[in-house]
Amino acid sequence: MKIEKRLEELGLVLPEPIKIPAGVEISFSWVHTFGNRVYISGHGALNPDGTPAAPFGSVGKEVSLEEGYNSARKAGLAMLGSLKQELSNLDKIEGWLKVRGYVNAAPDVVKTTNVVNGFSDLILEVFGPETGKHARIAIGVAALPLGLPVVIEAEVAIAL
Amino acid sequence: MKIEKRLEELGLVLPEPIKIPAGVEISFSWVHTFGNRVYISGHGALNPDGTPAAPFGSVGKEVSLEEGYNSARKAGLAMLGSLKQELSNLDKIEGWLKVRGYVNAAPDVVKTTNVVNGFSDLILEVFGPETGKHARIAIGVAALPLGLPVVIEAEVAIAL
Amino acid sequence: MKIEKRLEELGLVLPEPIKIPAGVEISFSWVHTFGNRVYISGHGALNPDGTPAAPFGSVGKEVSLEEGYNSARKAGLAMLGSLKQELSNLDKIEGWLKVRGYVNAAPDVVKTTNVVNGFSDLILEVFGPETGKHARIAIGVAALPLGLPVVIEAEVAIAL
Repeated sequence: MKIEKRLEELGLVLPEPIKIPAGVEISFSWVHTFGNRVYISGHGALNPDGTPAAPFGSVGKEVSLEEGYNSARKAGLAMLGSLKQELSNLDKIEGWLKVRGYVNAAPDVVKTTNVVNGFSDLILEVFGPETGKHARIAIGVAALPLGLPVVIEAEVAIAL
Repeated sequence: MKIEKRLEELGLVLPEPIKIPAGVEISFSWVHTFGNRVYISGHGALNPDGTPAAPFGSVGKEVSLEEGYNSARKAGLAMLGSLKQELSNLDKIEGWLKVRGYVNAAPDVVKTTNVVNGFSDLILEVFGPETGKHARIAIGVAALPLGLPVVIEAEVAIAL
Repeated sequence: MKIEKRLEELGLVLPEPIKIPAGVEISFSWVHTFGNRVYISGHGALNPDGTPAAPFGSVGKEVSLEEGYNSARKAGLAMLGSLKQELSNLDKIEGWLKVRGYVNAAPDVVKTTNVVNGFSDLILEVFGPETGKHARIAIGVAALPLGLPVVIEAEVAIAL
């Protein structure tokens, strides 16, 4: 359990499974494994108990760039939590292929790149520069589920 | 033709092939098969004759949440129509891997999840919980082609 | 080097490797090869020296539809530049699978399709209708890195 150990070294704790707020229904899976690929739904920041984590709103308005960075990092921990549930052992992950970061951002916010680095930096810290390597986009969108400032999706390759 | 039969049972009719309005040119394919994957371009709601279906506009403004849900469902029928043309037999589909739903939404519309459920619910009804299972994102965007309120893209796995 | 020759025939010159402006940090890879797939990060228009190319801003406001089309085309040349660095020989590309075009667009701009054609037309000119064939989305987003009017990402298949 190398990745598990690495998380411990870094003092990182994965949140509990996602708790959906009342009034929101989901008819999809948080992660979906098919062959040697895991397709991962959009994840946002969670509190330790699995509820969506503040701050909410738009980066550049209610949410600062630094808070956006932290929200992206927490979205990464939430995603690792979902992957741990799915795979049992995070060491199965052989490659982070593509990451898509969506930032709820006002039209004049052009540093979406720096915000989504919160996610990428976490993945590189935990998985290292080889397994953690990934292509990425970071775009500013008009609205995100639950009013989250950042939502991240990804596709990873696993050992069979 | 299990899926065909299932569509009939549900009283669902696939629209005719997509008719592009004058003034819009497309230099891409609606679906693109490569190996055991089918990559599917963004689809919106169609009328039975293949023309883009009303309502148009932004969810939360011109379009209600319920109308958005229905538009997402119709986008699903349009996509199944394109897949039927490409594959001849929809039973070839072995897995819905990843679905991306884009909702033309005002910044205060946070229920993009519920809107895109219109698509996911259809896929699960038609393909069942195993083959229909998929990871997903549902984001609110500033503008969509033709003024559509919802556009959906997907990647599916097929039997070779 | 068929593709290289084709670029020459078309009078197309790939820009130098991407130069990131001061104040922007990136913790991702421009392209990431895994097995027979290359995952390509969001690319925008570049000047010949690798710096981000004007115009900047929102299509429909600061940037015209035609300028948007040209920006999408230049994003394609930038992407080919990154792929050339990664693969050495662009003939290795066997298929353009999926292209995602993000257009910084005001809510009333519905011709995002025509803008992203700038990219698709280039790929089809250079790679031809078989290898160049791709599925696509073209959506209007609220903000893009560096204030770029168009950002494009893609996934291609390569010969091993």
